[in-house]
This record gives sequence, C-alpha cells and structure tokens, in this order.
Amino acid sequence: MKFEFRNPTHLVFGAGSLSRLGEMVGAHGKKALLVTGGGSVRRNGTFDRAVSSLKASGIAVAECSGVEPNPRLSTVQRGAEIARREGCDVVVALGGGSVMDASKVMAAALFYEGDLWEMFPHGQASRRLPERALPIVTVPTLAATGSEMNGGAVITDEKSTVKSFVTARCLYPQTAIVDPELTANVPQDQTAYGICDLITHVTESYFNGVDGTPLQDRFAEGVILTAMEWGPKAVADGLDIEARAQVQWASVVALNGWVQIGTLSPYPVHMIEHSLSAHHDIAHGAGLAVVGPAWMRFAAKTRPERFAQFSERLFGLPLQRPEDAEAAAQGIDRFEAFLRSIGCPTRLSEVGIGGALLERYAKDTLLVARGADGRLPGRPAMSEKDIVEVLHSAL
Amino acid sequence: MKFEFRNPTHLVFGAGSLSRLGEMVGAHGKKALLVTGGGSVRRNGTFDRAVSSLKASGIAVAECSGVEPNPRLSTVQRGAEIARREGCDVVVALGGGSVMDASKVMAAALFYEGDLWEMFPHGQASRRLPERALPIVTVPTLAATGSEMNGGAVITDEKSTVKSFVTARCLYPQTAIVDPELTANVPQDQTAYGICDLITHVTESYFNGVDGTPLQDRFAEGVILTAMEWGPKAVADGLDIEARAQVQWASVVALNGWVQIGTLSPYPVHMIEHSLSAHHDIAHGAGLAVVGPAWMRFAAKTRPERFAQFSERLFGLPLQRPEDAEAAAQGIDRFEAFLRSIGCPTRLSEVGIGGALLERYAKDTLLVARGADGRLPGRPAMSEKDIVEVLHSAL
Repeated sequence: MKFEFRNPTHLVFGAGSLSRLGEMVGAHGKKALLVTGGGSVRRNGTFDRAVSSLKASGIAVAECSGVEPNPRLSTVQRGAEIARREGCDVVVALGGGSVMDASKVMAAALFYEGDLWEMFPHGQASRRLPERALPIVTVPTLAATGSEMNGGAVITDEKSTVKSFVTARCLYPQTAIVDPELTANVPQDQTAYGICDLITHVTESYFNGVDGTPLQDRFAEGVILTAMEWGPKAVADGLDIEARAQVQWASVVALNGWVQIGTLSPYPVHMIEHSLSAHHDIAHGAGLAVVGPAWMRFAAKTRPERFAQFSERLFGLPLQRPEDAEAAAQGIDRFEAFLRSIGCPTRLSEVGIGGALLERYAKDTLLVARGADGRLPGRPAMSEKDIVEVLHSAL
Repeated sequence: MKFEFRNPTHLVFGAGSLSRLGEMVGAHGKKALLVTGGGSVRRNGTFDRAVSSLKASGIAVAECSGVEPNPRLSTVQRGAEIARREGCDVVVALGGGSVMDASKVMAAALFYEGDLWEMFPHGQASRRLPERALPIVTVPTLAATGSEMNGGAVITDEKSTVKSFVTARCLYPQTAIVDPELTANVPQDQTAYGICDLITHVTESYFNGVDGTPLQDRFAEGVILTAMEWGPKAVADGLDIEARAQVQWASVVALNGWVQIGTLSPYPVHMIEHSLSAHHDIAHGAGLAVVGPAWMRFAAKTRPERFAQFSERLFGLPLQRPEDAEAAAQGIDRFEAFLRSIGCPTRLSEVGIGGALLERYAKDTLLVARGADGRLPGRPAMSEKDIVEVLHSAL
C-alpha cells in the first residue's frame, strides 16, 4: 500500500447550511458565476435563497443556467465566456453532478489556453491537465455524484459523442456546502439512481482495486450498508430529512477519496456506462444499475473470492469456502434485487437501449480508457469483445 | 448530523517514503528544527537517513532531541527557543506521539505571546488558541497516536502535573510522511499499546458521540476490525511490514477526523488516562488498556444497546434483543481478552498504580474536562465519584 492523499475541500454539512453560502463564497471572491441546471432550483426556491445569501454578503452574481444532464463541452465554453465577460472571480455550482462538473471545468477554462478537450483523455496523444482555476464552491442538490468534494469532472464532447473525465488538483472545490434539505424535492427515480451511483463509486474500487487494502474494504462496505439501510427510506419518503442526510453523507464519502485511497482503482463500470449516456439521454445512475450487476457476473468468473466476500459481509451469506462461486452469485443477485427494490432499471431494454450499437459503445469505452495492453483497465481487464459480452448480457 | 470538516494535511504513505522527507520539507522551508525523542531513531539509523534526505535537498538542520514520553511544557519551551535562536522556518517531528505533539506546540510557540499554558484548558478561565505556527512535517515512528494527520497535541505541565490538550487549525501538519518501515523496530509491548491507543480513538466516538451517525459507526468498526486482524501479526513479528503498514494506516485514520466527523464526541477514557500518565510514567496506550474496559462496563449499564451493537458487529455475538446486556458484557470481555492477548495490561496493579490517589486522578480529570454540569463529558457524563468507581474497578 503506497499512496499520497490530500483533499483540501472545506466541507460544511447539515440541514440549513445553504444559508451560509454568502459567508463561504465571500472568503474567495466578490462576483460569482452562479451555475445551475434545468430550472428545478428556480421552481423550488433554492435559487432565490442562494442569491439572497450571496447578496447579503455583498457578492454580485452572474448567471449561467441550463447545464444539461451529461454536460457538454459547448456548455462549459458558454459558462466560461460569461465568467470572462462578467469578470467573475469565483464559481458557485448549484445543482447535481452535471452542474458541479461543468462548473469545475468552467473555472479552469479561464486559464486554459487552446482546446479545452485536451484536458480529457479521448484517444488522442496530446493531453494537458489544467493547472489553475477560479475558486469553486459546490452546493449539491442531489445525493449521487460526490463531485462536491473531489477534483474530478465528466464532460461530453457532443461532436464526437465521447464522454470523458478529468481529475486535477485545481479542480477541488474550496468549499462544499452540503445541505440535505436541498435534496427533499428530488423525485423517487432520481433519488434511486443517485443511490446506485454512490454505491457504484465504492464497488468500483472494492472490486477493481489492488489487493491488500482491508481497511478500505471495510469503509466501502460501510458506505454500501449505510446506503442500503437509509436509501429505501429516502426513496419511500423524500421529505424524510434524516434519511436524505444519511444518503447524502454516504454519497460525499463514496467519492471524496477516503474509500478509494491507495486502491489505485480504475472505474470500468463507469467507463462503460459513460459510453451509453453519451449516446442516449439516460441518467448516469440508471445506466450504472444496468451495467453494474452484468459486469459483476462477468468479473466474478475470474475472481469469485472477492464477490464471495461481498456476499458474506453485505448480505450475511455463509461461505462454504473463500472462493464460493455460488455465494458470490447469490450476493450479486441480492444486490441486483436491492437496486430493483428502490426502482432502478437493471436491463438495457428498460432504459430504451437495444443491441444495435453494442460494438460502438465498446469502442468508445476503449477510446477513453485503454490500458497498455489495449484493454479496459479493471479486474479483469476487458477487451472490446468482453465489453460487448457484458452489455449483451444486460439487454 | 451537522458539522464542518477540513483536513489539509498532505499524506505520503508507504514503505520507503522517508526518502522523500527532504523534498517535502523543502516545499516549506530552508532550515528545519528536527525534533526527536529518547534516542531510538539515532540507534536504528532513522535519524541519519532523515538528515541525509534533508541535506540532499539543501535544508539546514537544528536539533531538539530528548522529548520525553508525556512531553512537558518545559520541553516545548526549550524546542521553541532553539527554533528561535537558530532561525528555523519549518519543524520536522521524527518520533512517536510525544515528539509530534511537542513539535506542533513548538511550532506555534514562536508566534504565541505570553504563557504557553494558556493554550490548554486546565481549569482556569483564560484560554487563547494559537493562531499561527511554523509549517510542520510529521514523520511518525510508532503507529498509535494519529497526531501525524490532525491538529491536536497533548502536553503535561510538570509544575501542576496536569496533562491537557489543544486543538487548533494552525497545528495541522502540512505534510505527514508515514513510512511503516520506521515502525519495524518498535518493541512488542509498545506495538501493543499503540494498537490499544488507535482502537480507543475510535471507541471514544463510537460510544460517546451523538446518535444518528451510522456511517461513522461502520467506519469505526472497520478500524477496530482491521486493528484486531492485523495487530496480532505486527506484535508477533515486528518485521512483518505488511502488518505494520495495515496497523499504521488504521492508526492514521483512527484520529485524522474521518471516523469522528459529526459525532461531537468527548474523550472520557483519554481524559481519565491522562490524569494517570501525568502522575505516573506509564505508556498512554497501556493506561488506556486499563481504563477502557473498566469504563465500558460502567457505561454499558446506562446504554446496553450501544455495547450490544459493538458485541454483535465486532465479535459476531448474537443479540436476543437490541439492548441485550448479556451480549454487551460478553463483547466487552472479548475486547479485554483481545487486549490481553496482544500483551496489554488491563489492571492498574499491572502498571504499578495503587489505590492511594484515585480521588486525585478524578479531580485532575475534571480540571481538564468539565462540562457545564460539573461532570466529565461523555455518555454517561461522570461525576468525580463515578471516575473513582471506574478506577477502583480496575485496581
């Protein structure tokens, strides 16, 4: 186990913490680019409360609204242009993962010379990480992505329909204001997709990380157990703020680095899903619910002992031996049943995706994440044929 | 659940990472105050390797050696004087918890006007937190304290024999270099005490934190399970670097804030133990092994359900009902047996402490940590009589 870790984000967590937005942003700037999504924050009053808090602290506001799910490079460019024109010195992301990811790249775009797409791996040789960004303050309105407290962002280039990611030190938010009350209006389906998203963040490192990280295993299991305990309550009653808080706290921890630390994990399920949501307008979390169990059944063939541990510790299934393939399969079935129980789709057909483009998705996946051996990094590494096989099993 | 969190320390973890000391210190200063303890780092070559790494990066070194276990205020003053005289601009702590804690306060002492003891709660009205410190780089040589990646320090005022603590933002190390190889020479008993110390860091918040922090519970359980799995291996074979690494990683996480976050937990077992090790030259971890189980039996009387959960999740004991007092008692017995199995004392008589001063220890404890109701904060809050009762039960 060998690693470096530093997460400088100042986290402010708790119901009602939105009221501290102005105070927190005021530490970093005087004019905020306030980035939002499709308009729900306007309809439910969150936007007005955010603006009031900013104005009460003497912070001027320029708006960039309309960031779409699976945010596009052109949207990032539009936001950066507004920030430049309006002289913004801080970026405030008020929304879900798409808004936060787009905001981070907008903040870096102001200092990035040349083609923004060069920040992102997408099958071409040249890649330059951003080195500087405006200060970023995140205010998530959805418990899912973990983007509020990490240095990553996922963006889609609409010209090539490739969805790719960037991780850089300058993209860590200065402050994350995580107020579970803001998630109270998230509809049932999106709540469920968020739960699947956060769980998948930790199953990725649990199943694909290096050996010999027992404490990280325990942390990952803790996130999943907490999400499985409190997730159904948040889905059943969106106004249960206690459940919303527990789910959102799990979502922050699931991708702020505490669980993944030292695991050197790739994210094969995410990579495959990204190639789906780049082509189809599906929620990322819904796509993960489809790809995840299918991938698990594929990976369990080569590594049953890992999935047997998952089955034993998460679902209390007794093991006949450490590499008990039957118990492994049962655990995956239970996990899939959990996803279905909260309303997630688990077949491609349920999200309106047929078999016509399976090879294209596989090729796109490998365009973004390809190891030295030409395969998708993970345990096991996957060829194009393997990816097609997994997707085919999920039709 | 409502909290703020920020831990800015840059963590460099892994066998061999001592070689990066110069590089890391060089980012913060040109002349280091190198603080060490009783001399073991000189005898085993760690000191020379540290100095070589610093000099190779062009960093001059002034030494402050001889920091004692349960470090004294006068030692802190001596170190600060050396730093001032030699013009040091960065402090490097190379040692165990005592060295790291003393180093932090030395780093702050240079900017602190007036009596250093006013940083520490000790029963007097005036208390002023330090607001500025030289940059601090920690290099722990013992897996125990967690001081390498947090903003706390424990110091003893030898005049009053009171041991107290300070936590401040400026005391967070800039960098923690955690190299498990440096712990290979730690003797069996100190290794065991360190394991007890790290476990106690998380049992404090597990048993004394606010209700409604299920994810933090899981994290605490993960730390304990990992320490119970790998600790005995590190005790049995000190040269088992894999076991050393797992134990040390658990010790970092046990007190870097990830487990305690949002629990608002007091540390009653630590507070009671400090009053013992202020009077007697015992290892802090050994004192915790004595006080801990005795305290648990006391606290389980008012809150059996919490200890029943501990018994079920840590030792797999079946519960007849959530507040199963019998299962709770069995879990505490199992925990005490674990401590004994790795060589920890669990009675005051084993560490040479008799019953003569029990009331004095209790009074001293309340001098440092007294709630508005006059009792020691915890669940349950404890009167002087309660503290005496716990200590008496551990004679």
